[in-house]
Amino acid sequence: MKLKVQFSFILFVAFLWTSSSFAQENVDLEMMYKIKTEGTRNSQIQDLAFHLTDLMGPRLSGSTNLRRARQWTAEKFEEWGLQNVKIDSYGEFGRGWDVKKSYIAMKTPYYAPLIGYPKAWTEGTNGLVSSEVVLVDIQSEADFEKYKGKLSGKVIMLPTTLSTTPAFTAEARRLTDEDLENRKEVTINAATGARYTPAQIQQMRDQRVLDQKVNEFLMNEGIAMKLSGTRGNFGTVFHTRAGSYSTAKNKTLPEMEIALEHFGRIERLLKNGQTVNLDAEIEVEWLDDDYKGYNVLAEIPGTDKTLKPELVLLGAHLDSWHAGTGANDNAAGVVVMMEAIRILKTLGVQPRRTIRIALWGEEEQGLFGSRGYVQKYVGDRQTQEKKGEWDKISAYYNVDNGSGKIRGIYLEGNDQLVPVFEKWFEPFHEMGAKTITRRNTGSTDHVAFDAVGVPGFQFIQDPIDYGKGYHTNMDLYERMQQGDMTQAAIIVAAMVYNTAQRDLKLPRKPWGK
Amino acid sequence: MKLKVQFSFILFVAFLWTSSSFAQENVDLEMMYKIKTEGTRNSQIQDLAFHLTDLMGPRLSGSTNLRRARQWTAEKFEEWGLQNVKIDSYGEFGRGWDVKKSYIAMKTPYYAPLIGYPKAWTEGTNGLVSSEVVLVDIQSEADFEKYKGKLSGKVIMLPTTLSTTPAFTAEARRLTDEDLENRKEVTINAATGARYTPAQIQQMRDQRVLDQKVNEFLMNEGIAMKLSGTRGNFGTVFHTRAGSYSTAKNKTLPEMEIALEHFGRIERLLKNGQTVNLDAEIEVEWLDDDYKGYNVLAEIPGTDKTLKPELVLLGAHLDSWHAGTGANDNAAGVVVMMEAIRILKTLGVQPRRTIRIALWGEEEQGLFGSRGYVQKYVGDRQTQEKKGEWDKISAYYNVDNGSGKIRGIYLEGNDQLVPVFEKWFEPFHEMGAKTITRRNTGSTDHVAFDAVGVPGFQFIQDPIDYGKGYHTNMDLYERMQQGDMTQAAIIVAAMVYNTAQRDLKLPRKPWGK
Repeated sequence: MKLKVQFSFILFVAFLWTSSSFAQENVDLEMMYKIKTEGTRNSQIQDLAFHLTDLMGPRLSGSTNLRRARQWTAEKFEEWGLQNVKIDSYGEFGRGWDVKKSYIAMKTPYYAPLIGYPKAWTEGTNGLVSSEVVLVDIQSEADFEKYKGKLSGKVIMLPTTLSTTPAFTAEARRLTDEDLENRKEVTINAATGARYTPAQIQQMRDQRVLDQKVNEFLMNEGIAMKLSGTRGNFGTVFHTRAGSYSTAKNKTLPEMEIALEHFGRIERLLKNGQTVNLDAEIEVEWLDDDYKGYNVLAEIPGTDKTLKPELVLLGAHLDSWHAGTGANDNAAGVVVMMEAIRILKTLGVQPRRTIRIALWGEEEQGLFGSRGYVQKYVGDRQTQEKKGEWDKISAYYNVDNGSGKIRGIYLEGNDQLVPVFEKWFEPFHEMGAKTITRRNTGSTDHVAFDAVGVPGFQFIQDPIDYGKGYHTNMDLYERMQQGDMTQAAIIVAAMVYNTAQRDLKLPRKPWGK
Repeated sequence: MKLKVQFSFILFVAFLWTSSSFAQENVDLEMMYKIKTEGTRNSQIQDLAFHLTDLMGPRLSGSTNLRRARQWTAEKFEEWGLQNVKIDSYGEFGRGWDVKKSYIAMKTPYYAPLIGYPKAWTEGTNGLVSSEVVLVDIQSEADFEKYKGKLSGKVIMLPTTLSTTPAFTAEARRLTDEDLENRKEVTINAATGARYTPAQIQQMRDQRVLDQKVNEFLMNEGIAMKLSGTRGNFGTVFHTRAGSYSTAKNKTLPEMEIALEHFGRIERLLKNGQTVNLDAEIEVEWLDDDYKGYNVLAEIPGTDKTLKPELVLLGAHLDSWHAGTGANDNAAGVVVMMEAIRILKTLGVQPRRTIRIALWGEEEQGLFGSRGYVQKYVGDRQTQEKKGEWDKISAYYNVDNGSGKIRGIYLEGNDQLVPVFEKWFEPFHEMGAKTITRRNTGSTDHVAFDAVGVPGFQFIQDPIDYGKGYHTNMDLYERMQQGDMTQAAIIVAAMVYNTAQRDLKLPRKPWGK
């Protein structure tokens, strides 16, 4: 008898466990249908994409265009009837900077306009610079002597080690079933010890010190401008490390990044003893009226008595680099997130938890917007102090890998979510989204949440023109795959909805004291 | 008995036939070895490539740079000890044209430098143009009324139908064995009748008439500049149809070709009711001191008493489009041909027939250089009149498909050459060159010779960055695959040598009256 009772008890416990871990993942298929229908029939993707890229333009941190974009997105949220719309400062960022004029052309041995862009936060030139170009090759401090007194008013370039090779593989790609299967695998690297030898590390340190001294030397010699080569080819120019937006206003060099082939041409001409003359002009405007950084926030308030103080966040960064219009990086993410919340709002969803969209500022300089938000409202990753929203946020969803379709999601190692997300993705298998991987993916705003133990996710996306175009002058409207973004907005809307309605917050990885 | 004699006679004839068609294709393997060795050990490809692209710059027909390049190549031929070096005029080409300044940037809704180039032989603007952009959409003459009196001093654009899609296939490719095998196949198209219906043809004619009227209208209204969208993307700008180099000096519009994405941005902004202001400037210089077109010629004279008046020609066009430096189109071909003759000269070859290199002018405007040469020295393709060199030229070899390896040769339908070239290519199988195809290939200088029944050949080449870069601003030094060009120069040198030494001229297709 006793045995029998015990067995029944086990069955009962098993039943409870089963019902708690599976029953609550029942997906509201009617709502999924509505989301798909609204997203495909009444998509606003094209209009949002146009406004954010073509009309707002490049949205460099601190720039006038980023200010315009904050304003425009906030107004759009108001227009849609979202609640608690605000442009919320998280703290200080630094100086704003706008390009007012940029021109560069070779004058001798023949006239040729060059593709070039002022480096972000560079100083302007003193009007039009007409100068020969000097190739400054400094291998040690002893080499300073060679150039002393010879560089005043000159345009200079340092030798580059960059080169370009033909593209034998396609730039755009759909992930295959095999790719996706491989992406599930979590590889644990063996501890192989230091990546660099002590000698190599010392060499790198010495090089950094020398680089700094070279920069000071060039500044003291009064050069007119510095030319930098960049990654990219065929007219695509990747941005290199930026100048300084620091409010300390340290003097820096006027600097222009030019197309690899154009840089190579000048370098080869100089190395072959030819004289190269350039005309160049950079005019910039510094914005010193507001050093603060901001995020744009808006909500669909929760309606469940108990759950409404809890939050589901979706977001993407609004800022971009400055020579394109930040289309794939990251107007695409912003548009997808805006469209996702528009779909939910249009459907009149009354979510149990509050749904909040956050458009982050200053991601490109170090996730400043999302980290600032987390620091202000969620928790301190250094001290591990928890703040008000720490135990209220169920999940944060982020899109920042271009405009390619969503094919699955990265769990940031949180195994507990496999059965949850597998269930949630089921209605989207036929749209190509099905892969749940335990893997981490790095380097964007979800990391700010993950760093304080709050579930933050980024999606697996098809790599369509992303690697080739992000952080370049060619990250423009045409890069955005609007059909793919329609799919992504639908899936994000569904994920957000499911998170808002779920009985429990999403399970977390252990964190904190 | 009679039968037996007859049989012996047949055998004897068969022997003669065999010996004449095979024995004479014995290849001088020692010379092939020397050519390979000189071409690989002492290659001048890099130096030639640098000079022709970086240093000479773009070599638009009639331009200062093309004149410089003619001079430089002629001097190089003299330096190598070639004979009968001359810059030979074939007749009139037209006006020369140089760009002295080119600048274009969007001013509102925000500042953005644009990638743009003056259309070849366009007029300059009247200094810096600061203007709003007007999208002029004229579907019929009735639409002129809408714009009358409103365009003076404005920058205008016509709507474009161009668009860009992600590259799901690689831009650079090695031809596979299967590709090469397929290329041997000659497809004969069934006569399916007219490609266009009479209605379609009428529509195209009407459109051409309307386009002309629109252009006249814009000119009469006094627009400041016209913007054109172009093929290409990611910063690569293809050249569209050129302006006029005619000595009639008909007035044309100042016109700039801008990157597809930049054109698209302005067009979308205008279609969405936004105001777009531009700053733009084109300064050009017309060269009216010499309207003639020229080819650069040089020789290694023949040494065989009987055969030395006969000729083997090798060539490539020296001119290019104007926004790149004409690297793959066609500095690559020029460099390969120069290197090929340098190899033969350096080896001290005493050819039976005279070897002549020809660097053609004005290919891009309609094979003017090679056609002019043929008209002057070889034959008239209209009247079929034969001139002095008609029965002296054994073959003309051309390279104009970029810098990719030679993989074989097009026979232009001349079946008789299969056994000859199969034998000649044997020593180069291990370099990837082996495919003899009866196919035609079009549109470059060998066609000028083929048109008068003189054997003219172009090679099968690997398509490395050619389709993506030719006729663009990005056809620059980096496009040239110098390892591949080394291979090509060796093979061309061998083909030219074999042609010069062969007992008979190469067999021809029937031609003429």
